Amino acid sequence: MILASYPDGRDGSARIVAPNRATARPVGASFADMIDGHPMTAGDPAPFDIARCAAPLPRARQFLDGSAYVNHVELVRRARGAQMPASFWTDPLMYQGCADPFLGPTDPIRSDPAWGTDFEAEIAVITGEVPAGADVETSRAAIRYLVLLNDISLRDLIPAELAKGFGFVQSKPPSSLSPLVRSVDDMPGWDGDRLHVTMCVDRNGAPFGRLDAGADMTFGFPQLIAHAARTRPLPAGTVIGSGTVSNKLDGGPGRTVDDGGAGYACIAEQRMVETIRDGQARTPWLQPGDRVRIWAEADGQDLFGAIEQEVIE
Amino acid sequence: MILASYPDGRDGSARIVAPNRATARPVGASFADMIDGHPMTAGDPAPFDIARCAAPLPRARQFLDGSAYVNHVELVRRARGAQMPASFWTDPLMYQGCADPFLGPTDPIRSDPAWGTDFEAEIAVITGEVPAGADVETSRAAIRYLVLLNDISLRDLIPAELAKGFGFVQSKPPSSLSPLVRSVDDMPGWDGDRLHVTMCVDRNGAPFGRLDAGADMTFGFPQLIAHAARTRPLPAGTVIGSGTVSNKLDGGPGRTVDDGGAGYACIAEQRMVETIRDGQARTPWLQPGDRVRIWAEADGQDLFGAIEQEVIE
Repeated sequence: MILASYPDGRDGSARIVAPNRATARPVGASFADMIDGHPMTAGDPAPFDIARCAAPLPRARQFLDGSAYVNHVELVRRARGAQMPASFWTDPLMYQGCADPFLGPTDPIRSDPAWGTDFEAEIAVITGEVPAGADVETSRAAIRYLVLLNDISLRDLIPAELAKGFGFVQSKPPSSLSPLVRSVDDMPGWDGDRLHVTMCVDRNGAPFGRLDAGADMTFGFPQLIAHAARTRPLPAGTVIGSGTVSNKLDGGPGRTVDDGGAGYACIAEQRMVETIRDGQARTPWLQPGDRVRIWAEADGQDLFGAIEQEVIE
Repeated sequence: MILASYPDGRDGSARIVAPNRATARPVGASFADMIDGHPMTAGDPAPFDIARCAAPLPRARQFLDGSAYVNHVELVRRARGAQMPASFWTDPLMYQGCADPFLGPTDPIRSDPAWGTDFEAEIAVITGEVPAGADVETSRAAIRYLVLLNDISLRDLIPAELAKGFGFVQSKPPSSLSPLVRSVDDMPGWDGDRLHVTMCVDRNGAPFGRLDAGADMTFGFPQLIAHAARTRPLPAGTVIGSGTVSNKLDGGPGRTVDDGGAGYACIAEQRMVETIRDGQARTPWLQPGDRVRIWAEADGQDLFGAIEQEVIE
């Protein structure tokens, strides 16, 4: 099942979208209400306009964002001359993010140019209820939907904030979600742990990343969920992010799309590779007027619609 | 206005509580709905049973917890031989906490004895909508309600989790809220920035803390809200915590209640003082069967009812 939300009040109005995306049926409830188990009634099909879509969950219950592509973390560390602890390969990195609001797929990114604005293209799952202390099997069974997520990051605010020791608040503003969510039973490329699709990123219309989201994901989603739920229950409607998709290339830092590589799912990683190779970063952060487009493909088929955002001051 | 929630579905059922707490009137909505501006209708008064109360907000929209009593932070650092950066006196420490669920005032604390379970007695405010980038004045005007909060902390999980750099997830399980919330226009001791009340904590029936919550709070709530909202809007129903209440005594680390001092609002602080004075901590973390009671008084009057929790395995 493919679902989307049209703007309507705080939670939006859910639609069941036909596979060809030409039509959609209203269900008389928000997607949040559907997740909570409210009864729904499928209405008559009407023309579907993906450009009208809000975030499927304009306000979620929890957002916990992993950093499951450990390659990305290792590169961040290497660029600043630091070693990564070996435990990072076995104990997931995760932070608690802003669950309310989530931006819609075409909402602008309002940001001060001095903040060093970056995108991060991620896969995310939306869970049902997960009891505290759930194991990996229970966590796997709780995955209900998949969606794409742009974890907007303010790079120039991060060092000072993380140095304080309490994690991200100001340096991680609200993230955005793709227009479409898909249930796990209708998800091409899904193996129960990882999503085997091509994660595509364009910056200002030029290819920036064409990554294999199923490769190099050290921790699968069930492991991320079990990590999040170790000491707390997760309510139905919890969003768990994968962290920036990142591919390793023969053990090295990868190459840009222009250079025949898979490219990157965030500017920071391209800048780290530049720093490692050339001694300094050249690619600028997002500036007012810049556009980012994030989507995912399997067998040439677009799966979630696109996140398409412009940066404004 | 004094409000409470009886258990009912996910959000509870709100009551307007009479000043003498003998009766309360149903409003036909949850407290969360009231905050969202749903119309409400006050029904007939019925006997009020504070022991029946759930958390006023069993699921909140955001929870951002400050650490506004910088004295507490300085003690933590001193106990481990570290200096505190001078910027901590001007730039608030804050982390993003678990907003869903909040435990009710008498819910047990389920915890593994190996996790080093501690309480933290805090004041919290509940806001209306706060636009991103709000200044301190706008933030002050957005404060709607006050409540007490027990920020349960798993001390033996904290060092390894914070060392990873992304803040708290597993080491900060769901917090609990007092049975009563009060609107700012009916809040004894409230000056618009700080709450001048005595924060009382008992451990197993013995006095542990009798602290002046209005003193030594380096950052007022409007500053904490402005910090939280710098790069994101805050939805109505956001909970902003003060951090552990802590009093400085003549520039020193304070004394226990038994020793004629104001005591402490968390076990960690008493242990730090023991470490600084005696070279080692003696007071144990909470064990199964231990009970903590947290309440606040002004002029001998109880203001929010009590958080009373027992630790179970």
